[in-house]
Amino acid sequence: MKLITAIIRPDRLGLVKEALFRVGVTGISLSKVSGHGGEREIIEHYRGTQVRMEFHEKVQLQIAVSEPFVDVTVNAILQSARTGEVGDGKIFVQPLDRVIRIRTGEQDVDAL
Amino acid sequence: MKLITAIIRPDRLGLVKEALFRVGVTGISLSKVSGHGGEREIIEHYRGTQVRMEFHEKVQLQIAVSEPFVDVTVNAILQSARTGEVGDGKIFVQPLDRVIRIRTGEQDVDAL
Amino acid sequence: MKLITAIIRPDRLGLVKEALFRVGVTGISLSKVSGHGGEREIIEHYRGTQVRMEFHEKVQLQIAVSEPFVDVTVNAILQSARTGEVGDGKIFVQPLDRVIRIRTGEQDVDAL
Ligand SMILES: Nc1ncnc2c1ncn2[C@@H]1O[C@H](COP(=O)(O)OP(=O)(O)OP(=O)(O)O)[C@@H](O)[C@H]1O
Ligand SMILES: Nc1ncnc2c1ncn2[C@@H]1O[C@H](COP(=O)(O)OP(=O)(O)OP(=O)(O)O)[C@@H](O)[C@H]1O
Ligand SMILES: Nc1ncnc2c1ncn2[C@@H]1O[C@H](COP(=O)(O)OP(=O)(O)OP(=O)(O)O)[C@@H](O)[C@H]1O
Ligand SMILES: [Mg+2]
Ligand SMILES: [Mg+2]
Ligand SMILES: [Mg+2]
Repeated sequence: MKLITAIIRPDRLGLVKEALFRVGVTGISLSKVSGHGGEREIIEHYRGTQVRMEFHEKVQLQIAVSEPFVDVTVNAILQSARTGEVGDGKIFVQPLDRVIRIRTGEQDVDAL
Repeated sequence: MKLITAIIRPDRLGLVKEALFRVGVTGISLSKVSGHGGEREIIEHYRGTQVRMEFHEKVQLQIAVSEPFVDVTVNAILQSARTGEVGDGKIFVQPLDRVIRIRTGEQDVDAL
Repeated sequence: MKLITAIIRPDRLGLVKEALFRVGVTGISLSKVSGHGGEREIIEHYRGTQVRMEFHEKVQLQIAVSEPFVDVTVNAILQSARTGEVGDGKIFVQPLDRVIRIRTGEQDVDAL
């Protein structure tokens, strides 16, 4: 099992949800984050070099999936979240040791 | 060490905090998430099949623990968060390579 | 690759961002959390022992880095976030299997 985290543009959330639903992925947690990507802006200031990193509002999705759904999920996000402009976001895939459904106590793939 | 993430009903937070405290688990980070579980609703719409996933407000707990505390923590959450109705939430257990206490620089189990 | 999560005092965020920028780390996601550390307060109440855990507002940073940047990033956070008082926060380091840049599809170290 893997935990997939995607940080996307807020205005792409509707399309991403729909793409995930179409491939059968419905277990999703959303939260708001504020982020900065790989770019390095330096402002030359009259009193010296100054650091400025602009942070932008993004939406973070977290999706726990079984192995066969990893690529399906990543591809659904890539196709629905991409605009081609800088700032489209990132996807992170992390190991997940255990999943438990609180209502039933079911574990791992049965809990997904 | 493991990072335990639990997504629970907001109105169970008090009981869950108390259950964790009773088993000696006090290091906790809370955040708000909006989520959808495994259910698949399809609405037949006059212009075709339409996707609808209702998102509900949940509370996310993140708890870093040493190995002997993993089952203790999971069980405390299961017993305090369960209502028996759909939507009780999920628990995820993930590997954790390192923990550092910022004040002292202590590492790993000493930092928990 | 690792995912570094740091939970810090909100009033240290400016210094931490600057310290990260200076070591070349700019890919960062921020969110608000409410947290409690290792301390155990017990209130003796007239109707029995009562649990009280005070939660404090913190800022959570998440930073995906390649291996050579793990110690650099951890040290930048330690030096900028530390006041020496209890409540300075925690750093967690977790394994990260894959990273994908949504705009280009680049993977792993190329996506960082
Ligand atoms: N290394 C990282 N660690 C944690 N979060 C990151 C990282 N890189 C990006 N993010 C998050 O993803 C969001 C979008 O990043 P962004 O798409 O600008 O990445 P990028 O690598 O700069 O790609 P691009 O060149 O397409 O802009 C950021 O606002 C931040 O929330
Ligand atoms: N696979 C998943 N990945 C990420 N988050 C999830 C996943 N499944 C559930 N969640 C989160 O947990 C919350 C509660 O889910 P829920 O309890 O409805 O799970 P479920 O599997 O549908 O179980 P039940 O049948 O008891 O409803 C969701 O709102 C969402 O935030
Ligand atoms: N074990 C833990 N699991 C998850 N989050 C934690 C844990 N310990 C601390 N935190 C988070 O870090 C924040 C700051 O914790 P804090 O600095 O008080 O840790 P501490 O171990 O009590 O160290 P100190 O003795 O310096 O206070 C908490 O408010 C919480 O959000
Ligand atoms: Mg960018
Ligand atoms: Mg459900
Ligand atoms: Mg403390």
